[in-house]
Amino acid sequence: MGLKSFEQHRLGLRDGREVYFDGNRVEDVTAHPVLRAGMAFTAIDYRLAEEEEHRELAVCTDPATGEPYSRFYKIPETAEDLLRRRELIAAGSRVCGGPPLIKEIGTDALFALHIVSDHMDKSLGTSTLPKVREYFRECRSRDLGFAVAQTDAKGDRGKRPSEQHNPDVYVRVVDRRKDGIVVRGAKAHTTASPFADELIVLPTRAMAEADKDYAVAFAVPVATPGVKLIAEVSSHPWDNRFDYPVTTDLKMVDTVTIFDDVFVPWERVFLCGEWKYAGALANAFVEFHRFTAASYKLPMCELFIGAAQLIAEYNGVAGVTHVRDKIMELIAWTETTRGLLVAASLEHRVAPPGIAVPNITLTNVAKHHFAKNYHNMVQNLQDIAGGLLVTAPFRKDWENEETRGYLDHYLGGVKGVSGVQRVRAMKLIRDIAASGFGGYQEILSIHAEGSLAAQRITILRDYDVKRCVDIVKSHLNK
Amino acid sequence: MGLKSFEQHRLGLRDGREVYFDGNRVEDVTAHPVLRAGMAFTAIDYRLAEEEEHRELAVCTDPATGEPYSRFYKIPETAEDLLRRRELIAAGSRVCGGPPLIKEIGTDALFALHIVSDHMDKSLGTSTLPKVREYFRECRSRDLGFAVAQTDAKGDRGKRPSEQHNPDVYVRVVDRRKDGIVVRGAKAHTTASPFADELIVLPTRAMAEADKDYAVAFAVPVATPGVKLIAEVSSHPWDNRFDYPVTTDLKMVDTVTIFDDVFVPWERVFLCGEWKYAGALANAFVEFHRFTAASYKLPMCELFIGAAQLIAEYNGVAGVTHVRDKIMELIAWTETTRGLLVAASLEHRVAPPGIAVPNITLTNVAKHHFAKNYHNMVQNLQDIAGGLLVTAPFRKDWENEETRGYLDHYLGGVKGVSGVQRVRAMKLIRDIAASGFGGYQEILSIHAEGSLAAQRITILRDYDVKRCVDIVKSHLNK
Amino acid sequence: MGLKSFEQHRLGLRDGREVYFDGNRVEDVTAHPVLRAGMAFTAIDYRLAEEEEHRELAVCTDPATGEPYSRFYKIPETAEDLLRRRELIAAGSRVCGGPPLIKEIGTDALFALHIVSDHMDKSLGTSTLPKVREYFRECRSRDLGFAVAQTDAKGDRGKRPSEQHNPDVYVRVVDRRKDGIVVRGAKAHTTASPFADELIVLPTRAMAEADKDYAVAFAVPVATPGVKLIAEVSSHPWDNRFDYPVTTDLKMVDTVTIFDDVFVPWERVFLCGEWKYAGALANAFVEFHRFTAASYKLPMCELFIGAAQLIAEYNGVAGVTHVRDKIMELIAWTETTRGLLVAASLEHRVAPPGIAVPNITLTNVAKHHFAKNYHNMVQNLQDIAGGLLVTAPFRKDWENEETRGYLDHYLGGVKGVSGVQRVRAMKLIRDIAASGFGGYQEILSIHAEGSLAAQRITILRDYDVKRCVDIVKSHLNK
Amino acid sequence: MGLKSFEQHRLGLRDGREVYFDGNRVEDVTAHPVLRAGMAFTAIDYRLAEEEEHRELAVCTDPATGEPYSRFYKIPETAEDLLRRRELIAAGSRVCGGPPLIKEIGTDALFALHIVSDHMDKSLGTSTLPKVREYFRECRSRDLGFAVAQTDAKGDRGKRPSEQHNPDVYVRVVDRRKDGIVVRGAKAHTTASPFADELIVLPTRAMAEADKDYAVAFAVPVATPGVKLIAEVSSHPWDNRFDYPVTTDLKMVDTVTIFDDVFVPWERVFLCGEWKYAGALANAFVEFHRFTAASYKLPMCELFIGAAQLIAEYNGVAGVTHVRDKIMELIAWTETTRGLLVAASLEHRVAPPGIAVPNITLTNVAKHHFAKNYHNMVQNLQDIAGGLLVTAPFRKDWENEETRGYLDHYLGGVKGVSGVQRVRAMKLIRDIAASGFGGYQEILSIHAEGSLAAQRITILRDYDVKRCVDIVKSHLNK
Repeated sequence: MGLKSFEQHRLGLRDGREVYFDGNRVEDVTAHPVLRAGMAFTAIDYRLAEEEEHRELAVCTDPATGEPYSRFYKIPETAEDLLRRRELIAAGSRVCGGPPLIKEIGTDALFALHIVSDHMDKSLGTSTLPKVREYFRECRSRDLGFAVAQTDAKGDRGKRPSEQHNPDVYVRVVDRRKDGIVVRGAKAHTTASPFADELIVLPTRAMAEADKDYAVAFAVPVATPGVKLIAEVSSHPWDNRFDYPVTTDLKMVDTVTIFDDVFVPWERVFLCGEWKYAGALANAFVEFHRFTAASYKLPMCELFIGAAQLIAEYNGVAGVTHVRDKIMELIAWTETTRGLLVAASLEHRVAPPGIAVPNITLTNVAKHHFAKNYHNMVQNLQDIAGGLLVTAPFRKDWENEETRGYLDHYLGGVKGVSGVQRVRAMKLIRDIAASGFGGYQEILSIHAEGSLAAQRITILRDYDVKRCVDIVKSHLNK
Repeated sequence: MGLKSFEQHRLGLRDGREVYFDGNRVEDVTAHPVLRAGMAFTAIDYRLAEEEEHRELAVCTDPATGEPYSRFYKIPETAEDLLRRRELIAAGSRVCGGPPLIKEIGTDALFALHIVSDHMDKSLGTSTLPKVREYFRECRSRDLGFAVAQTDAKGDRGKRPSEQHNPDVYVRVVDRRKDGIVVRGAKAHTTASPFADELIVLPTRAMAEADKDYAVAFAVPVATPGVKLIAEVSSHPWDNRFDYPVTTDLKMVDTVTIFDDVFVPWERVFLCGEWKYAGALANAFVEFHRFTAASYKLPMCELFIGAAQLIAEYNGVAGVTHVRDKIMELIAWTETTRGLLVAASLEHRVAPPGIAVPNITLTNVAKHHFAKNYHNMVQNLQDIAGGLLVTAPFRKDWENEETRGYLDHYLGGVKGVSGVQRVRAMKLIRDIAASGFGGYQEILSIHAEGSLAAQRITILRDYDVKRCVDIVKSHLNK
Repeated sequence: MGLKSFEQHRLGLRDGREVYFDGNRVEDVTAHPVLRAGMAFTAIDYRLAEEEEHRELAVCTDPATGEPYSRFYKIPETAEDLLRRRELIAAGSRVCGGPPLIKEIGTDALFALHIVSDHMDKSLGTSTLPKVREYFRECRSRDLGFAVAQTDAKGDRGKRPSEQHNPDVYVRVVDRRKDGIVVRGAKAHTTASPFADELIVLPTRAMAEADKDYAVAFAVPVATPGVKLIAEVSSHPWDNRFDYPVTTDLKMVDTVTIFDDVFVPWERVFLCGEWKYAGALANAFVEFHRFTAASYKLPMCELFIGAAQLIAEYNGVAGVTHVRDKIMELIAWTETTRGLLVAASLEHRVAPPGIAVPNITLTNVAKHHFAKNYHNMVQNLQDIAGGLLVTAPFRKDWENEETRGYLDHYLGGVKGVSGVQRVRAMKLIRDIAASGFGGYQEILSIHAEGSLAAQRITILRDYDVKRCVDIVKSHLNK
Repeated sequence: MGLKSFEQHRLGLRDGREVYFDGNRVEDVTAHPVLRAGMAFTAIDYRLAEEEEHRELAVCTDPATGEPYSRFYKIPETAEDLLRRRELIAAGSRVCGGPPLIKEIGTDALFALHIVSDHMDKSLGTSTLPKVREYFRECRSRDLGFAVAQTDAKGDRGKRPSEQHNPDVYVRVVDRRKDGIVVRGAKAHTTASPFADELIVLPTRAMAEADKDYAVAFAVPVATPGVKLIAEVSSHPWDNRFDYPVTTDLKMVDTVTIFDDVFVPWERVFLCGEWKYAGALANAFVEFHRFTAASYKLPMCELFIGAAQLIAEYNGVAGVTHVRDKIMELIAWTETTRGLLVAASLEHRVAPPGIAVPNITLTNVAKHHFAKNYHNMVQNLQDIAGGLLVTAPFRKDWENEETRGYLDHYLGGVKGVSGVQRVRAMKLIRDIAASGFGGYQEILSIHAEGSLAAQRITILRDYDVKRCVDIVKSHLNK
C-alpha cells in the first residue's frame, strides 16, 4: 500500500495517544468537538489525493513498481520536482486558507536527515543513512503523517543547553540502553501532533561538546508511552460560519510536547551525541521547511488580496487612489514571495546523496520578505475594510428579529450589496486578520520556521559576499 | 452639584434605554454579566475624581463659585490647560490600559460646537452659541457623561449623502416641527453609548447644498424613544484574569446606533440645514478628538514598552542587540507621539469664542505617526516575546493536576522565573496584542478619530506650504 | 557581416552628427576629452564580443547561415533566451559598474515593435510588421547600436499632447509627404544617443484621437539633418582615478534630443496616426526595458555589497551587529531583484509573432522593489562607511608632500590597512553613492524606465485580482 | 566689547593659521577663491547680529552691565532660553539653506564643559569649573567663533584608544610640563575650523583607565603652532548661481585637524587623565549638539517642502494624489523633528551649575527621526521633480545661442513657466539633493552629531523603562 485514505488516517488516530486540551485528557481526538475539526483540517493532505481535481498533483507513481504514492514523499531531484512540491503545498493551503502541514513538515525533516546522515556517516563512520532510508521507505509505503518537534522549551535563551539551571528545558538523552535510548524534556509549539502518526524530533540549535546529551534526533509513534501532548487551538473553539467563515474549518492545533522518559529503539535514533551535526541538522531541516513555509503562506496572501478588493467594491472605494495603492502593495508582497520561491527552485543545488535543496539565500529572502511585511499587509487590509470590521454586530444580532431589519437596512454597501452581504465580508476579514486567529497568524509569520533574526543570519552566511568584494577591488586596482 | 459619584452614575443608567447585545435586549446594562464590566471600565472617569491620587488632576474649582467640577469640563484657554487635559486623559487610560472616553469625547464635541456655533452665528445670524452654552452649563453642573455619534453608516462611500440609493445611510432630518425635529438614520461604532447619559450627534463630513437635510447636529439623552443601541464588545466576554490580565477589566463597547424617527427639541439642535458648516463642525470636533486620541493611546504604548522589557528579561534576551533595538523603537514611537502633543499644546491657537485649539498640524502628525507605525510596534513586541505567546496553555491546563506540574517545570524562564510567571507575562502580551482585542486595537489605531488618509489630508490643508515656496524663490532670485 | 568591432563602431561615429556639450558644438565625439570616455563606456557591448571571457555569452550563431551575430539580437523565444539575455546585460554592466545600454535598449524597442505591429496589422490591415522585420534584419546584419527616444518634453504634465499650450512639447508629425513624414518636437534624457548609430523614437504614453499627430514611431540614423543632441554627462568631467575609481570610466551621457522638422522615409515609420496603438507600444517597450533595467542594475547592487563589506573590514566593524544587519539588507535587496527576474523569465508568455515576454507583474515588482528601496540602501552603505566618505582629503592632498605623510599616518584602518588604502575605498563609495553621480543614480533608480507610480499601476493592471476575489467568495459560500 | 562685526571677524583670520586645500598651503583663507566663500557663509552668525531683522533674536543684553552680547552665549536656564536658541540657530541656517555653526557648536561644548567640570570638581576635588568659566567669559566678551574637534581618526574602530597598533589615531597627551601639556593626534571632520578663532578639543568616547592619556579636553587658538588643517569643501568649488543656486554661497568646510605636538597651557586644559569623565563630557556635548543639529536642519527640510511644491506646480502635477502624499510626508517629517525639539525644550532638566539641558530622549528621538528618514525624503523630492533634475542642460548650454532657443521652447512647464524658469527650479533641487553636496548632506544626516546607532543607544539609556515594567506588573498583580 502507498496511499492511505482520509478515513483510514482518521481511524488510525484512536490509538490511546495522551492528549490534553482545555484542562482535560482527550480520549479520542476524532470525537472531541473542537479537536475533530482540527483533525479534519490537518488531514486535508489525504483528501487531496482522493479528489479528481488534485490527484495528478498529489500522487506520484513509482517507476520501479508502478505503484502510486503521495507526492510529498517524492525526493526532489530537479527544479521541476521543487516547483511541483511548491504547488502541492499551496494547493492544500488554498483549500483551507491555511497549511495542513501533516506531510509537508515530516518530509522536510526526512530530506534533511538524508543529507546530514550521509555527511555524518562519511565523516564519522556512523551508519545512520541506512536507518533513515529504512524509516523513509516504511513511512512512504504506509503513507504516514507527521509532526516535527524541534523548538525546545529553552528556559534562559541566553544560555546553552548544558548551562541551564533546569537541565530539562532542552530534550536530552537520560539513559543509553542496549536496545535504545531514554529521552526527557519538552518541545514547544509542535504543530498538528495530535493528528499525526509519527513524531520526528530534531535539535533546535548548534551544540557544543558539553551539550552532547542534547544532540539527539529520533522518531517515535505519537502514541508512544511517556509522550504527552498539551494542545491549544489557533482560534476560537466555535462552529459558527457566519462570524468565522474561514476558521470554523481552519483550526491549527499546537502542543507543548512532553517527553517523560520516553524510550526510543536504536533503529529510530538518528543523532545521539554527535554534537557537531546538531546545528547542521537543525539548519538542513529549516531550509526545506522555510521553502515549505513560504509556499503554504501564499494562499493566505491571496485571501488578503481578494478580500481587500471585495470589500473595496462593497464599500464603493475600489477606484480610490490610496485603496488601489494598498492592493498593489498586497500584490507586490505576494508575488515577491512567490517569485523568489520559483527562483529558489530553479537555482537549487543538489546535495549528496542526491537531493535538490532550494537556493538558501533566495528561500530565506522570500520568507523574510513575507514575514517582515506581514503586519503592514494586515494594516493595508484593515485600512481598506474600515471600522465595521470590529464593530459590526455578530450572528446572534442578525438572528434577532428586533435588530436584523435595522442592520440589513443600514449596513448595506454600494447598490446591490445588502447589509448581511457586506458584514459577512467584514467578518471574513476580521476572522483572518483582526481576531485571535489573526494574532496567531501574526506570531506565526515571524516565529514559525525561525525568527526574522534567524533568517537574516542565514542570508549573511549563505551569500557569497567575497565575490562582491573582489569586484570592488578590481575597480580599485584598475 | 458639580461632581457626580461613580455610584450615582451607575444608578442613572437604569433608565429604560434600549440596548441590544449578543442577540438579546438588555434590560439593565449595570446588571448584565458582560456589559457591567464595560460600564465599570467606562465610568472610570468618575472614579478618578474620587481617588486621592488623581483628585487634583481630575477636579477643578470654579473661581466664581468655589465649586468643584470635573476638569474635563475646563474649557482650555492656555497651553497649561491643554497639557493638564492631556495628563488627565492619560491618567484614566493608564489605570485601565485603555481609554474610558466617557467625558473626553463629549467635551471634545462641546468645545467644537462652541467654536463653530460662534462662527456660524456671526456669519448667518443664527443664535446657536447660546444654546450650546446653556447645554454645556447643564452638563457640567450635572457632571454628565457622553457618547458622540459621528460616523454614519455611509452605504456607498463613493457617493455623497444625497446621492445614495438608500437615503437613510446618513442621519438626516425627516421632519421639522414647531417644537423640534425628527431624525432618522444610523451611526456606526459609537463608543460607550450604553453607559453614557447623553448622546451628541455630529455630521461626519462636509456637505453640499443638496445634502442639507443631512447637515444636522444635536444632543439627546441616551434613553430617548427611538434611539436603539446594538452593542458589541471589543474583546472576549470572559472574566478570566489569568488568560486576560488586561481585558478582563478593559471592555470597550461600541454600538450601531439607530435613530428610528427620534424627536429632538429645538434647544438641543445645533445644526439643521446650515450645510456649509457641516464640514467645519466635523473637522473641529475631530481636531480636539485626535488630541484626545493620541493622549489616551500613550498608556497602551507604555504597556508595550514595559511588556517587551519584562518578557525579554524573563526569556534571558534583554541584552541581545536586536531585542534592545526593538525596545528602542517602541520608546521612540511612544515619545514621538507624546512629544508632538506637548508641542501641539504649546503652539495652540485661541479660536473665538476663546478656546485653545491644539496645533492642528502637530496633532495630526502625532496621531498619524502613532497609527501608521502601530502594526510594526505590535510586530516588535510579538517578536521579542516568542511563539509561546499563542501556543502556551491557558488557565484550565494550569488548573489540571495532570498537566500543571509539567508546564511549570518546563516553561520557566531565566533562573527565578517560574513557568506560570513567564506564561502569565505571555498571556498579558497576547491579551493586548495578539487576540481579538489585539485586532480591535489594530483597527482602532487606524480608523478611530479618522483614517490615516484623513490625517494626511488635514496636514496638507493646515500646513503653510507657501511660506516654504517663498524661501525657495528667494534663493532663485538671489 | 554580423559582428562589428569596437573600433569600427568608433570610427562610424564621425559622421557629422550634431552634438552640443558644455556650451559648444562638438565636431567629433570620439575626440572630445569628456565625450570620448562616454563613448568608450557605451560601446563596451562591442568589446564584450571581442573578449575571450565573454564571447560565448555575447555572440550567437545563426543556425541557418552559420554566421555569428550579437546575442542582443537574439529574439527571445524561451526562458533560457531570457535568462541568457539577462546575464549578458549584467555582464556588460559588471565590467563598468553601470549599463552601457547601446544594444540593450534598442533591441527592447525592436521586440516591442514586432509585437505591436503584428497586432496592429491584424486589426487595422496595416503592413507595418514587414517594415519592422526588414529594419531589424538590417540592424542585426550591420550590428548597429541604438538610442531610444521615448520621453517627451511634456510641458504641462496634467494635460494631453493636444491640450498643451505649446504644441511642440510632444514629438508630432507636422507634414505627411509622398516619400515620408516630417516630425518636430523634443525628447528628454535620451541615453547614449551621441554614440549610437540609430535613433528609435517611440510614443511616451497612450493617446486619444485628438492626439493622433502625436502617435508616431520611427527610426532614423543619428546623423539625420535636423536631429540635434544637447548632451549632459552623469558625473564630473574629470579623469581622476584616485578620487573617482568608478566614474572615470563610467560616464553616462543623456541628451535633450531636438527634432527640428526631421524627414523620415515611410519605410522607417512604424506608427503614424494609429493612436489606439500608441499606449500599447509605449507599454510593450517598457516591459522589455524594465526587465533590462532590473538586469543592468544588479552589478551596481553587488558593488554596494562588496564596498560595504570592504570598508567595514577596513574600519574594524565587520562583526558589529548593526553593520552585519545592513549588509544583510543589501544582499536581500539585490537577491530579491535578481530572483524576481529569474522567475519572470521562467513564467514568461509568448506573444505573437512568437516573442517571449518576461512576466509583467514579476518584472515590475522587481523593478519597483529595486527602486523603492534604493535610497535606503545608499543610506546603509553610507552608514557603514562613515563621515570620512565626504571629509577625507582628495588626490591633490595626497600628492602634496607637506600633507601626505600626516594623512597616511592618521587615516589608516585596522592593522595592515594604510591611510591611502582606506581612503581610496571611501572614495569609491563616495563616487558611486555620495557624489554628483550618486545623485544621478538616485534619480535613475526612480525615474528611468518609468516612475514608481508607473510600475504600481502596471502591477495592478496585470495581476489577476479576480481570481483572488473568487477564492474569498468560495469561503463565503461554503 | 561684547559684539564683534563680521568684518572684524574676517580680518582676524589673517593670523598665520596653517591651512591646506586642494594640494596647497593657503596663506590667507579670506582671499582664497573657494575658501573665502566658505568663510562668508560660516561667519553669517556675525552678520545676523548686524541686521535689523535678526538683531533682537541674535543679541542679548547683560542685565548687570547693560552691554549687548551674542545670544549664542546666553547660558540656557529656562524653556524660553532653549526655544529662543533653537530659533536663532534656525534663523542662521534659513538665510543660507544650511548651518553656519561657528558659534552654535562652540557654545554647545562650553555648556557641556560647565556641567561636567562642576560634577568632576565635586567628585575629584579638581578645580576645572573656574577655568571653564574664565575661558567662557573671555570668549563671550571677545565674541569669538569656534570649531569643535571631537571625532578622532579612530583607526580600528573595534579597539579602544590604548589598544590601537598606531597609538596616534586618538589625540593624546605626549608630555606633561609645568606650564602645560603637549598633545599629538588627529581629529576628523572638524567643521568650519579654518574660519574659527578657537578650537575646542573634546574626547570622542568613554575611556578606560588604560586610555587615560587619551582622556584630554582643551582649547587653543586656531593659529597655534603645530595645528594643521587639511580642508575639504562640501560641494563643487564653482561660483555659478545658475546651476548651483544654493551652494554657490553655502560652502561647508571640514578639516582633518592634525595636532603635531601642540602645546596647551594649563589654564586651557579641561580634562587631562580623569578618564572616568571622558564619556560624560563626550555625551554632554553631544546632547546639546544634537539639539543644535536638529534645529539647524529644519530650514533644509523647509527647502525640501517648498521645492517639492514649486516644481510640482511647474510640472502641472500639484494636484496628483501621490505627489500630494509625498509633500505630506515631507511636512510630517519636518514637523515631527521640529515639534520634538519644542517638547524637549519644555521638558528640559536643569543640571548643576544651573544649565537647562534639553530633554535627552526627545532630542535624540528628534535627531534620529530626521536622520533615519532623510534619504526617503530625498527620494520624495526627486520623485516629484523628475528626470530633468539630472539631464537638463547646464548654464553654458543656456548661454550658447545655438541651443538656448530650443531649450527655452521645449523645456517649459505649465502655461506661464518658461524653460529657463523650470530648469532653474530643477537645478536648485539638484543642488541640494542630487549632487556632490546632496551626497554630503546625506552623510551629514546620518553621521554628524553621532550615528544612528549612537542615538538609539542614548534613547535606551535615558528612557525610564522600569516605570513601564511596573505598570505591566501592576496589571499582572491585580
